[in-house]
Amino acid sequence: MSKLVIVGTVAFDAIETPFGKTDKILGGAGTYIGLAANNFDIDSSIVSVVGGDFPQEYINILKERNINLDGLEIIQEGKTFFWSGRYHNDMNSRDTLDTQLNVLADFQPKVPNAYKNAEVVMLGNLHPLVQQSVLEQMEKPKLVILDTMNFWMDNTLEELTKVISQIDVITINDEEARQLSGEYSLVKAARKINKMGPAYVVIKKGEHGALLFHNDQMFFAPALPLEDVFDPTGAGDTFAGGFAGYLAKTGDYSFENMKNAIIYGSNLASFCVEKFGTERMLNLDQKEVEKRLETFKALTQFNISLA
Amino acid sequence: MSKLVIVGTVAFDAIETPFGKTDKILGGAGTYIGLAANNFDIDSSIVSVVGGDFPQEYINILKERNINLDGLEIIQEGKTFFWSGRYHNDMNSRDTLDTQLNVLADFQPKVPNAYKNAEVVMLGNLHPLVQQSVLEQMEKPKLVILDTMNFWMDNTLEELTKVISQIDVITINDEEARQLSGEYSLVKAARKINKMGPAYVVIKKGEHGALLFHNDQMFFAPALPLEDVFDPTGAGDTFAGGFAGYLAKTGDYSFENMKNAIIYGSNLASFCVEKFGTERMLNLDQKEVEKRLETFKALTQFNISLA
Repeated sequence: MSKLVIVGTVAFDAIETPFGKTDKILGGAGTYIGLAANNFDIDSSIVSVVGGDFPQEYINILKERNINLDGLEIIQEGKTFFWSGRYHNDMNSRDTLDTQLNVLADFQPKVPNAYKNAEVVMLGNLHPLVQQSVLEQMEKPKLVILDTMNFWMDNTLEELTKVISQIDVITINDEEARQLSGEYSLVKAARKINKMGPAYVVIKKGEHGALLFHNDQMFFAPALPLEDVFDPTGAGDTFAGGFAGYLAKTGDYSFENMKNAIIYGSNLASFCVEKFGTERMLNLDQKEVEKRLETFKALTQFNISLA
Repeated sequence: MSKLVIVGTVAFDAIETPFGKTDKILGGAGTYIGLAANNFDIDSSIVSVVGGDFPQEYINILKERNINLDGLEIIQEGKTFFWSGRYHNDMNSRDTLDTQLNVLADFQPKVPNAYKNAEVVMLGNLHPLVQQSVLEQMEKPKLVILDTMNFWMDNTLEELTKVISQIDVITINDEEARQLSGEYSLVKAARKINKMGPAYVVIKKGEHGALLFHNDQMFFAPALPLEDVFDPTGAGDTFAGGFAGYLAKTGDYSFENMKNAIIYGSNLASFCVEKFGTERMLNLDQKEVEKRLETFKALTQFNISLA
């Protein structure tokens, strides 16, 4: 079993969907990644920053799950990063209502000494210089996974390109893959992104599933069709956390094993959207997870034998 | 091996895509369904109508492939159905530039006597009264598949609902499934449509694949990610033709075998879009088809073993 270092926001979210709205609740990419990875019972550490307003209750939630928080800086006089958004009726698009960077504006990530030798690093969606800094603090990671988004492509492309050149796996959505590569075809886009550095390109298509590209090999996992999607917040990070956690657990970074990691990530993401925020992920039983993996198998596996 | 009756347009298409444009070429749902089903070397018959302007060359193309045309009426003084469309840059949406019903306006389908005992019937997208008429001419089909579209839901819902109540499998796209059921979730939509008649609901999502629903069971096949989509015309009909053809070939109408049929249909559709119109389907070698099925397996199959 490998150690996993996660850098990502630990934050407050306020969410509106057609099904209701929340006050400020626990959110952030680092939180979702950590909770998802935690399903694999690995030794993980979240590197992030919060303000003095961040409740002890939320810290306890993470600590009780044996997620190491030595790299979670608490700036007592500062305020925690806050995001607020409203989902449209189709649940596929959303408007950001408010973003308050607060303590994140000057975030200087510090990887705890005990985790500098971690084999797997998950660089959640943050300023590429923050991702770069974490990478430079690591001793000899075997697998570096990076998530990013169009905002950084628009505003910090040079820094982003530099960090992308040093990683193994990138996870981005389909529109971002097109923007980053200048190619409409996802096959061509992935090939171009391969050449920018990452040997593995994961393209997230939300309710339409996820694609993994590696040289001329491809793998696809659907999103599980659900009766109701209650709140999509965190689904992409849960996917990434499941992916990273499974790989850290198995220590096998081959393309074949990444297929399984994609399935585990998709499986966990299917739970995340069933309740507001982190609620479903905080109340997830391993029996449910295994049962739904069977549903994933039934959904995708077939028995055509070829000569 | 079962006989297959296909009703659908045999037509002229004129197509514009970002890659070029065609003059009037061979098209129509019946044509694409027939060519796809023909890959399974079954005894199929297309029931349709064309005008005196329809070239003998096109008739020969179908006859040379042993597709029975006893049910293809030729109205010498009439003109063949014509459709013209322009695809947008994303290839996912298109504008219809022209539709000339011509001989299709008064189409009275006549199933050849030798095919009235066919086990499988594929009712291609046409006026529901035409689909109803074909159904009434059949003796005892074991499997009736119906394709339709939003136009008939908007204009002939009562007739459509009646024919839907008598069939086994419906193939529609995601937006049409939502329109027909009034449900946004495709899981809920499929369940409602199940109750309208068809025990099997196939929801086509274009480049995002296809879903098969049967009671509480689901199966999903992705569309093969391609370097270039040259012309999407006929892809949905090719999918349906492959689905119907495989089922007619095997004579096994179970849910498990329909999974395979979905894969075979998706596989054939992935070829259809590689060239303008029917060109790719007319020059398809069974070795290529088998090779691409291997790609489909690699794309979707994984090896997670659960306790």
